[in-house]
Amino acid sequence: MKGSAKNKEELIIVKIGGNVIDHEKNLEAFLHDFALLPQKKILVHGGGKIATAIGEKMQILSEYVDGRRITNTPTLDLVTMVYGGLINKKIVAQLQAKNCNAIGITGADANCVPATKRVVNKIDYGWVGDIDEKKININTWNHFLKNNMIPVMAPLTHNEKGQMLNTNADTIAAALAIALSHTYLTKLVMCFEKNGVLENTEDENSVIPEINSKLFADLNNRKVIHSGILPKINNALLSIQKGVESVIIGNSAQLPNLIAGKSGTKILADD
Amino acid sequence: MKGSAKNKEELIIVKIGGNVIDHEKNLEAFLHDFALLPQKKILVHGGGKIATAIGEKMQILSEYVDGRRITNTPTLDLVTMVYGGLINKKIVAQLQAKNCNAIGITGADANCVPATKRVVNKIDYGWVGDIDEKKININTWNHFLKNNMIPVMAPLTHNEKGQMLNTNADTIAAALAIALSHTYLTKLVMCFEKNGVLENTEDENSVIPEINSKLFADLNNRKVIHSGILPKINNALLSIQKGVESVIIGNSAQLPNLIAGKSGTKILADD
Repeated sequence: MKGSAKNKEELIIVKIGGNVIDHEKNLEAFLHDFALLPQKKILVHGGGKIATAIGEKMQILSEYVDGRRITNTPTLDLVTMVYGGLINKKIVAQLQAKNCNAIGITGADANCVPATKRVVNKIDYGWVGDIDEKKININTWNHFLKNNMIPVMAPLTHNEKGQMLNTNADTIAAALAIALSHTYLTKLVMCFEKNGVLENTEDENSVIPEINSKLFADLNNRKVIHSGILPKINNALLSIQKGVESVIIGNSAQLPNLIAGKSGTKILADD
Repeated sequence: MKGSAKNKEELIIVKIGGNVIDHEKNLEAFLHDFALLPQKKILVHGGGKIATAIGEKMQILSEYVDGRRITNTPTLDLVTMVYGGLINKKIVAQLQAKNCNAIGITGADANCVPATKRVVNKIDYGWVGDIDEKKININTWNHFLKNNMIPVMAPLTHNEKGQMLNTNADTIAAALAIALSHTYLTKLVMCFEKNGVLENTEDENSVIPEINSKLFADLNNRKVIHSGILPKINNALLSIQKGVESVIIGNSAQLPNLIAGKSGTKILADD
């Protein structure tokens, strides 16, 4: 336990991705577990296939530059609708039914997560927002948390100049965990459809129980880890290095076990 | 000034409809005026043609029964996306850029406006929510207002059992004004594209300066008033009868004048 951690109240920040959102029963089961957590808590959610399906119906074409997806204006409107409206409010309504006083927000709401449009460097990613965790509006978050409101955040920010921006949900969860670790004993739980970081993506029993940056570099060099999970691990390592009490990556179906340290991959600071 | 009104702080509740939302410049000008209001304030917004346009792209068919529009499940998802996501967040981001600490909400968020699905009586309106103003969560609203958050509410509620519901924005604004009139000296400003209630809908200079329920009954009998505005006037009369300090119906382009009592139609209690 670090520094003055003993005096701090516990705060759990849980991130869920599209995979659980896309499956009604999985989402229901996850929200049941989340609602029961006795600690102060925040939920950050991603998108899901529904955004792609609606985008196709609306004939919004995804744009790619050098293999990277671009958030053009129609795509920004799409994610603002689907992430900030449809998905966010469905989660909020379901949590309310479970006696969890959820409040759905984006970074624009009460200016809780300001961002800046990503600087064009060879690639223009479009309306993508980068966060400086030092600019996260701690007062607003404290305000929700101290008054029994459970923030449910969609992966959207704004530039404080009237423009909504698209921001990765893992990045938001990590930045929030870092920013709030000054005030709370912050635990970050990054949920997805796998049981943790797997040595073999085909084998759910091959969970790597602990990863620090040295092991990560080694696994990376040996190309053991599936490339899709690298940004998630980078966000996790950054969080643990910047004061977050604990970070765990694991299956959204095992939330209580993840928090209890009984499953998933723990991300550790270097000795 | 009624009862203990002298001791109460002023609160302005402004409702805007689709007409101003659909025109970028009009919306920008309105939000400029709204941001400058020095009083405590709430904005309730309606939908707009953009929901219809997106619904058509998604091939969501409007259903009608006996000429009344029904909120079927695809329509509920549509309005949750467009009202709760796209329109709400665009307004919030723009207000934030004008130093107005907006927070976008629906009735589900922090359970601020619970509702019940409209009882089927000959017609099943689908996922439509009726509000009992006594059940509005005053603590939550006070909480926003006392902490310098400016609520921006989309015309959506929930049934506290996990289901979002579609609720008319005029009805929400009136119910909020009534519920908050116990705590605040509440002024309700119902904005639309006309200069007020017109004696002749073709003539913007034919504003009826004041209406009470007797005059309304008389105008109604003589079929002077355009039928489209009748629900708005009914909401306005209900508000003034149930303790709202002042109610005015007028043009969103004239917000400061409406609040100053210099334009629009004032709704008066009967003597």
